[in-house]
Amino acid sequence: MNIDMIRASAARAQGHVRRTPLLNSPFLDEIAGRRVWVKPECLQHTGSFKFRGGWSALSAMDEDTRKRGVIAFSSGNHAQGVALAAKLHGAPAVIVMPADAPKLKIENTRALGAEVVLYDRANHESREDIGASLANERGLTLVKPYDEPQVIAGQGTCGLEIAEQAAEQGVTEAEVLVCTGGGGLLSGVALALEADAPGMRVRPVEPDGFDDVRRSLASGRIERNASTTGNICDAIITPQPGDITFPLMQRLCGPGLSVSEDDALRAMAQAFLRLKVVAEPGGAVALAAALFHGDQLDAADVIVTISGGNVDPAMFARALQTLG
Amino acid sequence: MNIDMIRASAARAQGHVRRTPLLNSPFLDEIAGRRVWVKPECLQHTGSFKFRGGWSALSAMDEDTRKRGVIAFSSGNHAQGVALAAKLHGAPAVIVMPADAPKLKIENTRALGAEVVLYDRANHESREDIGASLANERGLTLVKPYDEPQVIAGQGTCGLEIAEQAAEQGVTEAEVLVCTGGGGLLSGVALALEADAPGMRVRPVEPDGFDDVRRSLASGRIERNASTTGNICDAIITPQPGDITFPLMQRLCGPGLSVSEDDALRAMAQAFLRLKVVAEPGGAVALAAALFHGDQLDAADVIVTISGGNVDPAMFARALQTLG
Repeated sequence: MNIDMIRASAARAQGHVRRTPLLNSPFLDEIAGRRVWVKPECLQHTGSFKFRGGWSALSAMDEDTRKRGVIAFSSGNHAQGVALAAKLHGAPAVIVMPADAPKLKIENTRALGAEVVLYDRANHESREDIGASLANERGLTLVKPYDEPQVIAGQGTCGLEIAEQAAEQGVTEAEVLVCTGGGGLLSGVALALEADAPGMRVRPVEPDGFDDVRRSLASGRIERNASTTGNICDAIITPQPGDITFPLMQRLCGPGLSVSEDDALRAMAQAFLRLKVVAEPGGAVALAAALFHGDQLDAADVIVTISGGNVDPAMFARALQTLG
Repeated sequence: MNIDMIRASAARAQGHVRRTPLLNSPFLDEIAGRRVWVKPECLQHTGSFKFRGGWSALSAMDEDTRKRGVIAFSSGNHAQGVALAAKLHGAPAVIVMPADAPKLKIENTRALGAEVVLYDRANHESREDIGASLANERGLTLVKPYDEPQVIAGQGTCGLEIAEQAAEQGVTEAEVLVCTGGGGLLSGVALALEADAPGMRVRPVEPDGFDDVRRSLASGRIERNASTTGNICDAIITPQPGDITFPLMQRLCGPGLSVSEDDALRAMAQAFLRLKVVAEPGGAVALAAALFHGDQLDAADVIVTISGGNVDPAMFARALQTLG
């Protein structure tokens, strides 16, 4: 896992993965008390950075492997990212989802051309068993959501863009806050910035109470979340850091931060009001840390990712209500 | 008024005006029955394309003129675009607004460094008189919202980007739908595309009942709107086409379209759902025409502007309700 893989992934992504802009607003700077730069990956294809990793994984396969198809376990952003990347490569995709996943997510994933296989969480069906037997039967390749070198390389292309776009604004030193689940985006961005913007320090942001990465970085060993449900920032909650991502985070990242659900909703509202972009709760945690937890930051410039924007209208309306 | 002025404006804008991306979604293509490309100027500084014109006007002035300052009449997007452009040039800006303008708009314009002068519509105070005496006293230069060559040149930079970004996607023939008020964005974009993408046809989109540009293009002379109030698409409603913009439209643009308020709200909801951007009602009319009035279009590819995203939370919530 190194910078050359990220640069190779970027070359394969050219013309396919969207180059998202780097946004800012004097109103956000005012709230934060420092300059805030926002990388809105909600504007990426399928509404999250996950398409970068999906495209990277598909485009790195040899033609025979790709033709047989891919499989992923996800009810969320990873599913859509892999589904669209497969479709655009003309490759079959099977997405394994719990039967009680939101209907809209199931429909969206199907609309992107994937075959959705549902499993019953209540009956203790194992998605791993279902997936393994499907993969075996059809010769499908599993695309893991973060603990997979080509996926990390794809997420890292976001970091290459940050380095370039920040430099255009004269910014070479900054704290870079990344919405973090398993650490694919975090470690990819950190690897890219180590090479292209060594004056930047990358730090994870998680929801309060689901801060496995922060705790793992503090203790020096992989810590688990007590639960992975019951928080509106569900899109970025995973059981624990990955085996590949964790050593990268340890080597490259500064201490983690965490924010409340209310912070995330208020950050969504500011993204609406001042940047005109739609953030999902999990996608807004890094912006929330920049705006509302400045006491834990040092740099004059802070760069934040908005990792995704796949939020239902009712939750978005709830965020808007924080504006009073 | 020619393409060289637009190219010169683009050179002055480099590093200051945001290059907005060109977005698309398979879900929007499905609704429209053709490929839809979206230029989201809501992501521009101050949340609308008006910053392009403001920057263009300020950056074209000689230093002495600029130092004395600028004045504009606007309670909306033009006010904010001129205010920020002036602030970034270190120039004073006076914005003349009705005393009953929404508080948030007055506050935003002040926060962008402008001096706001209020006039009383009820007492029949004339903003022109107030403006003229202020301009005279202080040597301020009036920046008109659309009927002003350097402003049109600035809006035209959006067209240069459309030509380039569409070509990157292999699109050189398309209908280009532009949200239209006085025609500054429309005529600027049309001039840019005449030069850089001659296979494209530019067409105005207006709210139903406020279609002065459509009627003017049809009759061959300047037609007025019966009223300029009473529609949620207020950001793009002006009394009539401009004296400079109208001949450009006549020479370069195809027939106009118009959409209902409900169409605009439904397009806002699709922009939220599929593109993760915030459109204001007036900013959504071109997307609405592409999605819901395809019977009036010919091309396999349609490119639409989202002209702005300055919408209050209550109106946005109303748009989300159309999703059911």
